[in-house]
Amino acid sequence: MPNIKITIAYDGTRFSGWQVQPGRITVQGAITEAVEKITGEKVRLTGSGRTDAGTHALAQVANFPIGRALEPAAFQRALNSRLPPDIRIRRLEPVPDDFHARRDARAKRYRYQIYTGPALSPFDYRYYYHFPHGPSVEPMRAAAKALLGEHDFRSFAAASIEVKSTVRTLYRSELRRVGSRLFYMVEGNGFLQHMVRNIVGTLLQIGTKRRVPEEMPRILSAADRRAAGPTAPAHGLFLVRVTYTSV
Amino acid sequence: MPNIKITIAYDGTRFSGWQVQPGRITVQGAITEAVEKITGEKVRLTGSGRTDAGTHALAQVANFPIGRALEPAAFQRALNSRLPPDIRIRRLEPVPDDFHARRDARAKRYRYQIYTGPALSPFDYRYYYHFPHGPSVEPMRAAAKALLGEHDFRSFAAASIEVKSTVRTLYRSELRRVGSRLFYMVEGNGFLQHMVRNIVGTLLQIGTKRRVPEEMPRILSAADRRAAGPTAPAHGLFLVRVTYTSV
Repeated sequence: MPNIKITIAYDGTRFSGWQVQPGRITVQGAITEAVEKITGEKVRLTGSGRTDAGTHALAQVANFPIGRALEPAAFQRALNSRLPPDIRIRRLEPVPDDFHARRDARAKRYRYQIYTGPALSPFDYRYYYHFPHGPSVEPMRAAAKALLGEHDFRSFAAASIEVKSTVRTLYRSELRRVGSRLFYMVEGNGFLQHMVRNIVGTLLQIGTKRRVPEEMPRILSAADRRAAGPTAPAHGLFLVRVTYTSV
Repeated sequence: MPNIKITIAYDGTRFSGWQVQPGRITVQGAITEAVEKITGEKVRLTGSGRTDAGTHALAQVANFPIGRALEPAAFQRALNSRLPPDIRIRRLEPVPDDFHARRDARAKRYRYQIYTGPALSPFDYRYYYHFPHGPSVEPMRAAAKALLGEHDFRSFAAASIEVKSTVRTLYRSELRRVGSRLFYMVEGNGFLQHMVRNIVGTLLQIGTKRRVPEEMPRILSAADRRAAGPTAPAHGLFLVRVTYTSV
């Protein structure tokens, strides 16, 4: 049975996140429907992971086994013509049967976008968290750096999560400032639910002097959601890249 | 009575255009409501001109007389906090009593955005006309040039318009290509309803060899809407700038 890997960009504004939920419009649901309309098959679409309602993706990855293999370029065109314009299939390729978009993901990269100026452009409001409180970038940079490497990120995970391990490794955790725009770039071997948004909420508390960067190790070692800052809004977050070793 | 000039950016996606219409969400309506909420006054807002449903503005200009003058910076902040995020007041300034945003406009600049690649990004679909039919830019450039100067633009105006004169002068009419993106930049002393969209629809016919650039003078002299091409979609169009001599 052919196994298809797709790389997907989406504007999360209109969606209740990635994962299918009854009565909600989701990205997974929209793609599954489009595949069914084209092939007549109800496929099981496996994403590299979920994204929250309102969160965007430049290159989410998913796979699905399918009975009848269509020619890849034609299949991609057919999917894009069936999908709403806020979801685009950027690549579509057959992969070995054992490729699994979630289990085989080796690393993920996210970007969180913040606008610190007084008035956010009407063309940016869906993609930037408007935070006009003059955050200082240097303490945020120091705090972001303290997260590099392997740590128990329990304090930065949604309180309700149930996972075997909350230990993750970050390879990159840095801030870039471009005028009034602030970008938090983070890459790691995996992320817990709300982890990036909770890190950003905490970094912004540090940027506005409600915490000091030196607190970061203590927040991590607390292993308690209440030790960290608030959850930054979903709409500033982009899933930028998912890395696989094999394909 | 103080007269207030505002410069406004808006994402036209959600609006039934600029002008107030009963039962519709419009930009003029939203701003009028916001002013009323702040000042208690129902002001008469005069725009430099209408924009179509779905058309965007980087710097639309409007003015309104108001009984009680608020401090400009505070008034601007109050308006932006009341307005939806897809409308932003970029400037707000008191102007002489006789300033009139429509009558005093000396020139307007528009940009029309076209994407010619196979798949349009989910972050661009609100702002680009997706035209993946490989238009040739050189003939379009030649045709655009033929529109420079003073002409009767009746052929490019909505068939239904009723205006004293359909003669307008274009100071700029050119195409820029950036990869798969095509931008038509046009500036003139005034524009008729649908004029930019009808010019673009005609240019794209020329770009795809259904017409030749040499037809332009004949289309103009026909002074008949049926002589020109179709109306390009509203969502590719941006009002970029309105120029005034005095303020």
